[in-house]
Amino acid sequence: MRYELYYWPSIQGRGEFVRLALEDAGAPYVDVARRPPGMKAMLRFLEGDALKTPPFAPPFLRAGGLLIAQTANILLYLGPRLRLAPKSEAGRLWVHQLQLTIADWLVEVHDVHHPIGSGLYYEDQKPESRRRAADFRKNRLPKFLGYFEEALKRKASGKITYAHLSLFQVVEGLRYAFPGTMRKLERRYPRVIELHERVASRPRLAAYLASKRRIPFNRQGIFRHYPELDAGNGP
Amino acid sequence: MRYELYYWPSIQGRGEFVRLALEDAGAPYVDVARRPPGMKAMLRFLEGDALKTPPFAPPFLRAGGLLIAQTANILLYLGPRLRLAPKSEAGRLWVHQLQLTIADWLVEVHDVHHPIGSGLYYEDQKPESRRRAADFRKNRLPKFLGYFEEALKRKASGKITYAHLSLFQVVEGLRYAFPGTMRKLERRYPRVIELHERVASRPRLAAYLASKRRIPFNRQGIFRHYPELDAGNGP
Repeated sequence: MRYELYYWPSIQGRGEFVRLALEDAGAPYVDVARRPPGMKAMLRFLEGDALKTPPFAPPFLRAGGLLIAQTANILLYLGPRLRLAPKSEAGRLWVHQLQLTIADWLVEVHDVHHPIGSGLYYEDQKPESRRRAADFRKNRLPKFLGYFEEALKRKASGKITYAHLSLFQVVEGLRYAFPGTMRKLERRYPRVIELHERVASRPRLAAYLASKRRIPFNRQGIFRHYPELDAGNGP
Repeated sequence: MRYELYYWPSIQGRGEFVRLALEDAGAPYVDVARRPPGMKAMLRFLEGDALKTPPFAPPFLRAGGLLIAQTANILLYLGPRLRLAPKSEAGRLWVHQLQLTIADWLVEVHDVHHPIGSGLYYEDQKPESRRRAADFRKNRLPKFLGYFEEALKRKASGKITYAHLSLFQVVEGLRYAFPGTMRKLERRYPRVIELHERVASRPRLAAYLASKRRIPFNRQGIFRHYPELDAGNGP
């Protein structure tokens, strides 16, 4: 099966969580919108009326006759097929639960720089972003990191799942967006950091991260580095 | 199987999406935290260290030996068991995709009154809330309503799923929180409104909605009515 991934071509964004799973598994896929007529194909799915099951937004995945949207839903589908999810129903529900918690976390990361409206520029919501960033750094970031530290402690297992790959990506993104904050916080979450290193050193993933297929972080994605929103610069 | 639902006892919140599915199916369940020692039991799961698979937050469901968190994940599990999800994998992925889009929508509804921090009072973020509410009413609310209108148009089917029950609940909540806005908008989304009525008239659900088990909307939940955030009062 050759998968087709549809996502905005210039950012990692939510599409990256799907890319990491496909790349780690060595699964054949096309990153459709990153090739010349691909954007048009993606917009046709988004704006046309041919699909019985339209996506609300990218990413979405074409897998044979299926068109699946919502990042966590795509990973729910891919997990067992890419051997990145447990076999048991209990195990799959647990991994999906972690993925949905990561999805919640991502919304909060995004809203640090877009607390008023996703359609407005950051520059049009800077004072609000500073306030939200202070709350995020002080309360929400430690809460999420602490939760995953505890989850890794309770259920130590050598087997990597798609949720572990996603947690790796969140740490990568946080280090890019909030380097000062992460320098101060990381030592409190040794299991999260160890997991990040373990994922980064997986051969296929390491090759992907060093390749041109990996889009660099930038100021259009979910994780954005604005010095004024990082530690020591907020209110 | 007698299910145990754990959720904050004084609000509808996210727990309500699970309650609606259980009630509509006539499934036996205990709303644990609404009975005397129940809050203690819920907090023991949240704060203790006995669970291998800890929840990040309520709601969570105990089903035999499983403890499942994240609203959409609980419904993914319950759907087929309560006959509120299609049998095919494609059908289940589609219903879950809709549920995850509703989950995204709910975050935005909540953040209208909490754009800066979920741990702060509304009163401490009123100017920001007004700005966010204006964007929500003008851009986000029509986008979500339009999406579900279109989804109902494309895949007309008599069979009610848990995602339909959830969409009913969102309409209920929006009418409570934004009565002025909804009065103006509703006529544009006839299929959403028809679905809302169809769900409300299901016998078991109608009985539940008229019972004391249904907690009234209030200003502690996700949907809150603040006149200054409704249509005609924003900036």
